[in-house]
Amino acid sequence: MAAEPLLNQLTDALRCLPGVGPKSAQRMALHLLERNREGGVKLSAVLAEAMQRIGRCKLCRDLTELEVCAICANPRRDLSLLCVVESPVDVLAIEQATAYQGRYFVLLGRLSPLDGIGPAELGLDQLSERLENTPPEEMIIATNPTVEGEATSYYLQRMAKTHNIRITRIAHGVPLGGELEYTDHSTLAHAFGSRLLVD
Amino acid sequence: MAAEPLLNQLTDALRCLPGVGPKSAQRMALHLLERNREGGVKLSAVLAEAMQRIGRCKLCRDLTELEVCAICANPRRDLSLLCVVESPVDVLAIEQATAYQGRYFVLLGRLSPLDGIGPAELGLDQLSERLENTPPEEMIIATNPTVEGEATSYYLQRMAKTHNIRITRIAHGVPLGGELEYTDHSTLAHAFGSRLLVD
Repeated sequence: MAAEPLLNQLTDALRCLPGVGPKSAQRMALHLLERNREGGVKLSAVLAEAMQRIGRCKLCRDLTELEVCAICANPRRDLSLLCVVESPVDVLAIEQATAYQGRYFVLLGRLSPLDGIGPAELGLDQLSERLENTPPEEMIIATNPTVEGEATSYYLQRMAKTHNIRITRIAHGVPLGGELEYTDHSTLAHAFGSRLLVD
Repeated sequence: MAAEPLLNQLTDALRCLPGVGPKSAQRMALHLLERNREGGVKLSAVLAEAMQRIGRCKLCRDLTELEVCAICANPRRDLSLLCVVESPVDVLAIEQATAYQGRYFVLLGRLSPLDGIGPAELGLDQLSERLENTPPEEMIIATNPTVEGEATSYYLQRMAKTHNIRITRIAHGVPLGGELEYTDHSTLAHAFGSRLLVD
């Protein structure tokens, strides 16, 4: 009785997952124990291996257990396009939603001086080197349209300008299927300001 | 490139958790990798240990890594009260919400002939033996108020009657803080039918 019961230890440990509070952690622990021990054993093994082996791609800084990630190592990906994103989730989202066939560069963050995140933490010296040595024809900036994402985007633009590369930014505006009535003010104002000539 | 990337394996493995779809699994995997490797390593270790070591208490069938669970092993718990519940969650809920100081018996399920769950699967022979050898004064039936829970409750009542034990069932009715207007019909009808004499 001295040690914490193992069930409580498991419930506590599950709370390291995002969005998992005490009730869900309890439900998860009991579900695994009562109905899916095999899944639990598998998860623990994969988790241990992933935590130990997954690092960053030395070219694009994306998460991978290899030295160079699958996208960077793929000779069929277009070297003339480089898309800069904030996080590995963004790579996954773009891969799933679009037919983009270029390469990526993952910042793993965004400029945020108050949190001590400057150009060095985002690997911008590495990006600058890459733009110098193997310049793409076009750099697509796909940081998030938040204050910090915009600041990062601005910094990237200034940096790329010195390398004579075409710089683009993904479009922001009213989402497809969205309704003007329910679109927030700043998005609608931005969409209005960035209107495009038809024809 | 032959093997599935480790990140995808981790995302897949996380989906064995209840209520975790592809998007949440992805978010969890990236959260652990980017922000909380230590938590991930800890989780994998505790998970492996729990899946391997947690079994059932030989007295009450609750989940525990010990031969006899902490509640059954506690000499200060009242042997004259025995509360029968469907699942380990119910034990946790009762322990957290009430001042109950008796023992438990965990069915780990409810009678459901269509799913092949009969008295044997619920350890009812073990319970019957316990009622025979160390009969409590009172058996509190706390199965859920669902069709199967009620059937289980009825079976338990019949079984306990042969042992000359006081049998009680936890009260069902309008929840505290609930409003009659929003209480479902069957609960309200039950509450009306089970009205108690005041004073």
